Amino acid sequence: MNHAFISQLKVVVLAGGVGGAKLADGFAQLLPAANLAVIVNTGDDFQHLGLTICPDLDTVIYTLAGLANPETGWGRAGESWRTMAEVGRLAGPTWFRLGDLDLATHLVRSHLLAAGATLTEATHHLCRHLGLAAAVLPMSNQPAPTLVETGEGVLSFQTWFVERQWQPAVQGIYLPEDVRATPQVLWALEKADLIAIAPSNPFVSINPILNVYPIRAMITDLPQLVIAVSPIIGGKAVKGPAAKMMAELGMEVTPAAVANVYGELIDAFVYDEQDAGSLDNPELATLTTNILMQSPADRRRLAAQILDFSMELIDQ
Amino acid sequence: MNHAFISQLKVVVLAGGVGGAKLADGFAQLLPAANLAVIVNTGDDFQHLGLTICPDLDTVIYTLAGLANPETGWGRAGESWRTMAEVGRLAGPTWFRLGDLDLATHLVRSHLLAAGATLTEATHHLCRHLGLAAAVLPMSNQPAPTLVETGEGVLSFQTWFVERQWQPAVQGIYLPEDVRATPQVLWALEKADLIAIAPSNPFVSINPILNVYPIRAMITDLPQLVIAVSPIIGGKAVKGPAAKMMAELGMEVTPAAVANVYGELIDAFVYDEQDAGSLDNPELATLTTNILMQSPADRRRLAAQILDFSMELIDQ
Repeated sequence: MNHAFISQLKVVVLAGGVGGAKLADGFAQLLPAANLAVIVNTGDDFQHLGLTICPDLDTVIYTLAGLANPETGWGRAGESWRTMAEVGRLAGPTWFRLGDLDLATHLVRSHLLAAGATLTEATHHLCRHLGLAAAVLPMSNQPAPTLVETGEGVLSFQTWFVERQWQPAVQGIYLPEDVRATPQVLWALEKADLIAIAPSNPFVSINPILNVYPIRAMITDLPQLVIAVSPIIGGKAVKGPAAKMMAELGMEVTPAAVANVYGELIDAFVYDEQDAGSLDNPELATLTTNILMQSPADRRRLAAQILDFSMELIDQ
Repeated sequence: MNHAFISQLKVVVLAGGVGGAKLADGFAQLLPAANLAVIVNTGDDFQHLGLTICPDLDTVIYTLAGLANPETGWGRAGESWRTMAEVGRLAGPTWFRLGDLDLATHLVRSHLLAAGATLTEATHHLCRHLGLAAAVLPMSNQPAPTLVETGEGVLSFQTWFVERQWQPAVQGIYLPEDVRATPQVLWALEKADLIAIAPSNPFVSINPILNVYPIRAMITDLPQLVIAVSPIIGGKAVKGPAAKMMAELGMEVTPAAVANVYGELIDAFVYDEQDAGSLDNPELATLTTNILMQSPADRRRLAAQILDFSMELIDQ
């Protein structure tokens, strides 16, 4: 394999939070910054304590900047909680934990938005001052809140995910209509050689991105190679509620079921070697490998395998 | 003097920041909480970093709760600056310093306002959870921004006061029209025996309160005793820009000039003994004493003298 050529591949990652951030970091370790763009779900964004909070964007930014807390998967390494403790003393809401360092991100973002910046511009500002060169792109500059229908009613995403710790059973997901992608997202998709769908939750991380007009149509129509990575290994989600949601929505909890969710959108599918042979779709190119990313080296290895696999498919 | 009776006086203090907070604290040391209300200027309030910040309310609350930073006159004692340092790293604005503890106040206030609380309700919530029983009342629930006309144009109050450190010469003050007092403010004024105008800046702390409809008219029409305390001692302001503003507005920098600003609104005037004899207005009852409040004991002494003086005037 010609690795000099591989590093010239232009890669776009569709990413939710932790899984997306890790795969993006794998690519970032291999590609020049100009060849990597990460389109990030903003369906989880919400207004809280007066601030605009973008959990998936922040997880991607902190991970790529080497600032992420490796234990929690969210927030900053070396975090402290002085402000949050005082918010609790003042009987403010503490179910969404905002550390002292993390708060600065939300304050500066909220400041920039109030001054008229788009979310794309505010995100670029944060990336630049954290030394990030790769493009981290919110899927839209418009609010695009994901709602979760449960037996307890329709909940906002963070209420369901964090405050209720994704316990209320999911009956459906509502995605907003009439949300439009940014010019930067469209440009990145057009220029891409490979569109990699991260091992994020298909329903509440990836579908919210695909739902933004015209992302799904562009990915369907453009000739670019599209590869998805399974968030399910051995019947379980690596992290978060994907497996629980799939069961509640009446689906099998398998890589094959994830591949079916993406359907004709994807050209190839990467899933874990412990599930090898479980996916039987002659129209889908597949790669089985160890997809669990427990270390930065794992991220790099998986990204390299996806790039090699892509080159094989492109060369065919 | 019958001190048991004095403690039954119902006192309302009109307060800006530090001077108002200190005088209010003097009264709070002497009176049962139910007999003290502090009506606080909110003309300095502004939106910053996404949050609603109320500098004078916070100074009054922190002072009455025993949490104020005694060295700065603003902010919390024992403050830390971790979030603000990170805001600076992210190239956010740092000219208005928000400490880690102080931030919690703004986050909880912004949360409550976003949830539909009035500023009065949000302030009451903060006071309650800081153990404050006295009523701290914003002058209005509506935004009422004070603007400062300078040779460099019309500036928002905090831009002039903090960002520009009150250096641009003042040509005029603009106060908003059509701002209304809260029911709690009207109720407190009606029930008061004594209305004490704190030694705050007459132009940017007290006039913004009097400008709120119908506070000036109520104070003029009601029979309550109204006593103002001079913010000027020996030709200088105790703190802040009062003296500089008076000179720039073409006034003498004297207690007499302050008394003239209040005119017929006040029944009595308290000024410093080092200015004794400088005020020659036969229609105004006067008390000269040491009005500089350098310690909590000073605050208590001055408040006690004002209560004694009030009793004499009421008994006449």
